[in-house]
Amino acid sequence: MRLGLTFILAAFSLNVQAETLKLDKDLAYHLVESLTVEIGPRLAGTEADLRSVVWAEQRLQQLGFDKVWREPFDMLYWERGAAKLTVAAPFNQSLVVTALGGSVGTPFDGISSQVVMFNTLEDLIQANKADVQDRIVFINHALERDIRGGFYGQVVGGRARGAVEAAKLGAKAIIIRSVGSSNNRFAHTGQMRYEDGVPRIPAAAISVPDAQQLSKMLVINPELTLSLQMNNNLPGTVTSHNVIAEITGSKRPDEIVLISAHLDSWDEGTGALDDGAGVGLVMATAALLKQEKPERTIRVVLFGNEEGGLIGARAYAARHHQQLANHVFASESDFGAGRIWRFDTGMGEQALTFARELQKKLAPLGIAMGPNTASGGPDVSILKAQGVPVASLMQDGTDYFDYHHTPNDTLDKIDPAALRQNLEAWLIMTREIANSQVNLRQ
Amino acid sequence: MRLGLTFILAAFSLNVQAETLKLDKDLAYHLVESLTVEIGPRLAGTEADLRSVVWAEQRLQQLGFDKVWREPFDMLYWERGAAKLTVAAPFNQSLVVTALGGSVGTPFDGISSQVVMFNTLEDLIQANKADVQDRIVFINHALERDIRGGFYGQVVGGRARGAVEAAKLGAKAIIIRSVGSSNNRFAHTGQMRYEDGVPRIPAAAISVPDAQQLSKMLVINPELTLSLQMNNNLPGTVTSHNVIAEITGSKRPDEIVLISAHLDSWDEGTGALDDGAGVGLVMATAALLKQEKPERTIRVVLFGNEEGGLIGARAYAARHHQQLANHVFASESDFGAGRIWRFDTGMGEQALTFARELQKKLAPLGIAMGPNTASGGPDVSILKAQGVPVASLMQDGTDYFDYHHTPNDTLDKIDPAALRQNLEAWLIMTREIANSQVNLRQ
Repeated sequence: MRLGLTFILAAFSLNVQAETLKLDKDLAYHLVESLTVEIGPRLAGTEADLRSVVWAEQRLQQLGFDKVWREPFDMLYWERGAAKLTVAAPFNQSLVVTALGGSVGTPFDGISSQVVMFNTLEDLIQANKADVQDRIVFINHALERDIRGGFYGQVVGGRARGAVEAAKLGAKAIIIRSVGSSNNRFAHTGQMRYEDGVPRIPAAAISVPDAQQLSKMLVINPELTLSLQMNNNLPGTVTSHNVIAEITGSKRPDEIVLISAHLDSWDEGTGALDDGAGVGLVMATAALLKQEKPERTIRVVLFGNEEGGLIGARAYAARHHQQLANHVFASESDFGAGRIWRFDTGMGEQALTFARELQKKLAPLGIAMGPNTASGGPDVSILKAQGVPVASLMQDGTDYFDYHHTPNDTLDKIDPAALRQNLEAWLIMTREIANSQVNLRQ
Repeated sequence: MRLGLTFILAAFSLNVQAETLKLDKDLAYHLVESLTVEIGPRLAGTEADLRSVVWAEQRLQQLGFDKVWREPFDMLYWERGAAKLTVAAPFNQSLVVTALGGSVGTPFDGISSQVVMFNTLEDLIQANKADVQDRIVFINHALERDIRGGFYGQVVGGRARGAVEAAKLGAKAIIIRSVGSSNNRFAHTGQMRYEDGVPRIPAAAISVPDAQQLSKMLVINPELTLSLQMNNNLPGTVTSHNVIAEITGSKRPDEIVLISAHLDSWDEGTGALDDGAGVGLVMATAALLKQEKPERTIRVVLFGNEEGGLIGARAYAARHHQQLANHVFASESDFGAGRIWRFDTGMGEQALTFARELQKKLAPLGIAMGPNTASGGPDVSILKAQGVPVASLMQDGTDYFDYHHTPNDTLDKIDPAALRQNLEAWLIMTREIANSQVNLRQ
């Protein structure tokens, strides 16, 4: 179904005070402040998503970019509804729950059933159908925090694939312990997937304290009944946009240095860490470098619908397939706003000599040389797969998953000093690459 | 109106596994764990409140108390409904909001109006009617944390009295910045009051990040419109209970050493810090001392409906008015579960010699001597006002108001080691007073 949602752009007079966006070291902070305050949550495909596109275009023009444009793409629109999860008698309590992105809703009266708990997705996959059939699956995976947020990759499979594996064994629904590292009582959303030929069952996350509470209840009464009600909608296909802007290169304008972030956010926080900070950083980096007349073109890409599965990035790669040979470099900022501690690369072996020289300029900021295995960032990984050289300025993610994908991802969680350090690093990396003639593919 | 809510007690088979409550140093923790997991939130007057009464009676009996009984009292029942607060165009965002306890709801369609912001209640009181009339008042008081939680008393007036002061100036509703010290995105509830002859306007709190967000929006657009919808109910009078239990004194059974906490909680967290920890502590203290055959009677009082305005405590004081002369001492634990750092007293000057000797026994736990100005705790302050000697084992409240009265007040916020230190201190204080002949009134 193609939706008839047509937002009239003229209606979006952002109506803010004429601001002077100062070209200073706090520009990244002021941009993320403006985005989160004036637009706030901007789930891909919503009216707020489109307001954020207008916001980005206006700000990029104010900042003096040489070209600013948008590129539309189609996407499946998903809409969160109210979610309610209650434990039946004798406990009679509600748990803090949120739908996973993409999940179907429940029937109007909800789904009530006994529960079967697993510690990991792997345990679920190995379970007997008789133990899962007609139950609500509960995956109670615990996490530990570290600077790289490494646990996330280990347990996020339960979020992405849990519904498919549970449905294969006949489960009625799945709830997971939030893929987050905080014991604050927020449920952590994020995208989940279905598979053709497997029943689509509702999928939701409960907060870490609620997962602990539920597991204690199950010790007392393994037969307890949970009731889940969710009324999400999947209305169909809508249009979203990547927003693109350039500082034209003074000497080699056809060579594109792409720096990026994603403009969309989940809908419960204001998307400050994920990824308002990145948006502010790459906009500020290019705007500040304009004064230096960089030799190569610096292209800022603010991807749409990263959260739904890199949809904007895939659209960008498809549309620009013929020009990717001109993309001499790409990088994305999408891991919050913690201090950068390492410079990872994903480029040709010969280029590493250049990269090591670049790292020496980053070293005074406390940034070490990392391995040559960088993805470049979630969206940029799509470009890397097509041969574009990349790097990742690795941010300290120790507390990133305390806030990520929760209502608690708000501006106050950004440390302005750490964001200044990020901006300095982005300026150095982008300047050095834009003013060099190095071929990072070799 | 007297409500027809009659909960059939026989229906409350708590149906938990037969547990052995071990008489050990973790007994307080296991009790608060049991209360928060098996009962959870227990707003006064609700079905869960009554389940908690049954829970307390059963546990007190299991613990071997000599007498266990309940004392009913009447109370006004208030029921939270859904609350929604949105900022109109151009911002189009929802803010995290919760009703203050006792607040009326809004009309079904809500209240939409421009906003007038004040930094403090005092600023509101001094405002011109023309600036407030027909607007939504926003009190944006900031807090700072400290070990005594001292700021709470300074700003909580905005919560308790803000609606009256705003209504006197013709406001349509009031929202306040949460009376809490955390930047987690939880709104902080708590009791508010109306005054006869002043219109009853809806009152709500928004989280600290939302208050910051709103104040930034007001800088950009002072004319912005807020819409508040709340459907709370005030159905009328119901019965709640104080639960009381005694270890009969071996030598002076008529002399009552009263130790207490409150059994009710707000409805959004599980009431672990406020005041499940206190419930666990005083139940465990008396149960453990039973083995030592204390000379005076130790009476545990679990007050009902503290949160609604010390309603259970007032009922207790009224019912026992004639016997208060036999109450040789009273104290309450109701400030979370942080380590105890000071022993404050509220007793006769001569008794301070005894108190200083008692403090020497507490000193190895890191507990200093405090002033003779203790309230004894919120509920016990009612008894102090009628001449009962009191003391307060002062808990470290540095992070208490991070969690207090929010959905985030859950078991995981209690440090079992700190609770053990609390239990040791309560055992020492209660033992020394129960085994002495000192007259603390003198």
